[in-house]
Amino acid sequence: MPSEDQFLGALFRRLGPFPPEVAVPPGDDCAALRLGSGSLLLVAVDQVVGDRHYCLDGPAAATPEEVGHKLLARNLSDIAAMGGIPCYCLVALGMSPRHDAVWTRRFLDSIADAARRFGVSMIGGDLAATPADAVAALTILGRVGAETVCRRAGAQPGDLLFATGAFGASLPTGHHLRFTPRCAEGRWLAENRYARAMIDVSDGLLLDLERLCRASDVSVRLDPDSIPRRVPGIPLAEVLTDGEDYELLFAVRPERADELIAAWPFDAVPLARIGVFRPRTGDLVQDMNGRMFGAVDAAGAGYDHFRQTPA
Amino acid sequence: MPSEDQFLGALFRRLGPFPPEVAVPPGDDCAALRLGSGSLLLVAVDQVVGDRHYCLDGPAAATPEEVGHKLLARNLSDIAAMGGIPCYCLVALGMSPRHDAVWTRRFLDSIADAARRFGVSMIGGDLAATPADAVAALTILGRVGAETVCRRAGAQPGDLLFATGAFGASLPTGHHLRFTPRCAEGRWLAENRYARAMIDVSDGLLLDLERLCRASDVSVRLDPDSIPRRVPGIPLAEVLTDGEDYELLFAVRPERADELIAAWPFDAVPLARIGVFRPRTGDLVQDMNGRMFGAVDAAGAGYDHFRQTPA
Repeated sequence: MPSEDQFLGALFRRLGPFPPEVAVPPGDDCAALRLGSGSLLLVAVDQVVGDRHYCLDGPAAATPEEVGHKLLARNLSDIAAMGGIPCYCLVALGMSPRHDAVWTRRFLDSIADAARRFGVSMIGGDLAATPADAVAALTILGRVGAETVCRRAGAQPGDLLFATGAFGASLPTGHHLRFTPRCAEGRWLAENRYARAMIDVSDGLLLDLERLCRASDVSVRLDPDSIPRRVPGIPLAEVLTDGEDYELLFAVRPERADELIAAWPFDAVPLARIGVFRPRTGDLVQDMNGRMFGAVDAAGAGYDHFRQTPA
Repeated sequence: MPSEDQFLGALFRRLGPFPPEVAVPPGDDCAALRLGSGSLLLVAVDQVVGDRHYCLDGPAAATPEEVGHKLLARNLSDIAAMGGIPCYCLVALGMSPRHDAVWTRRFLDSIADAARRFGVSMIGGDLAATPADAVAALTILGRVGAETVCRRAGAQPGDLLFATGAFGASLPTGHHLRFTPRCAEGRWLAENRYARAMIDVSDGLLLDLERLCRASDVSVRLDPDSIPRRVPGIPLAEVLTDGEDYELLFAVRPERADELIAAWPFDAVPLARIGVFRPRTGDLVQDMNGRMFGAVDAAGAGYDHFRQTPA
């Protein structure tokens, strides 16, 4: 079985060539289309599945509001990673037999309400009945300047790696259901040209950092001691591979790092310098001595949805 | 339990007001956005669910190519109903444990290939594993002139009701898996200003015709003998309520009807005049004597996905 990245990478290569209107082809957090007048239309889709992305039953069962928030916020995080402004969403809901009209109404209303708070209008949807599972997909549309859009590609050797927020223990803390997507931060970083390359962390810091490195054709040396931990004392492997942090990782020119730290206007959101990019070598992510993260590799490098298991 | 239309109607009312950029709010076959330069961006999402929209097992089991074709074509049909040109699509796939990489690759490749034949580029997607069900959602983006866009609203008393193609027996004939969406026809009807209001028939001729009437605030007298049947001799109730025809219903000014019939350039696609619009009264769809379709009501008025049963 290929990994999700291998599978999707091969698929995306078969999809091209794309019309010139496609400014960012599939493979980034969003695709981007040139639709007149200097700004790009960002588009992405993401899903949540019952008993995969949240618990349907038991003491940890998610409310419809939590499920709705998570679905929307995951997509907002993809817009944030491109430095964009979210604008519209559409929801496709596959309702399991346990989902009555009350659950469905609470779920959809919670998305619409949360969307409104982010300036997003829900403009469409589809309902279907499923035999058993609860599966919901949300499509997000956003806008970003053609000159300010951030991609996974663009990090250069010598650039510094920064991260917003903290990492690890997303499940036990409930962060994965209640996080705030870094929309304002992503937009600010892009519009002020601090971020040269950016990605959001959904599948694990290490896995998503590897994706940024691969797209930018660089390696990175990561300083594990500098990474803020969501819960003090949790093991490094959890910090690096738990995923569902929905924080931003981004590359900053070294000469702008001090200015960034001084100008950072989001007092409630930690900003940490956690590594430095290097010319590409065999290991994409290394420790500060240039060695790969052996302990982490043994623990798995993040969540691979395609394999249905931690990779 | 409310019907799907009641439920979604109430939801869409709670969603507004919309920004001025929203030219067509939710409730039509697509939403439409004003994104500069006279043309509108059309957006819609639709799903297919295993053992709901196609058979997973048994002699009627659908191939991944058939499932992919159906998912794309349903969405193309929504663009056609607005008179638009489809451009881009994104696919979210919830993979059941029985879906291996081979099935998934065949499914996605078939969508990409079919999309290309309609001038559509696949620009994004998401894969997730489900506990049991196969659920796929496709988001379609298209374009249409701000002056030519067709909506469900717009039919006037005295307008004639036309239909493309034939109706009924979509399941037993396999039409529901292999139909050709009426993209060229819908675009031609819109660009030549023949269609004043239009809808595609997914949930049944009667149910979708009621939706067009409700949006246009008219009733319609339907001549059952004039409706082309997909299989000769099938009962009227099947013609009116089977659904999954993916044909177009549209309103034409009476003084343009002869011109339309003479100019119709799609030799392989039947064009039939099947009714006449009237001022709105209690029954939205009536027989030619102004009575409601009693026999049809008993048989159910189309497929209601929200109730999980024929309505």
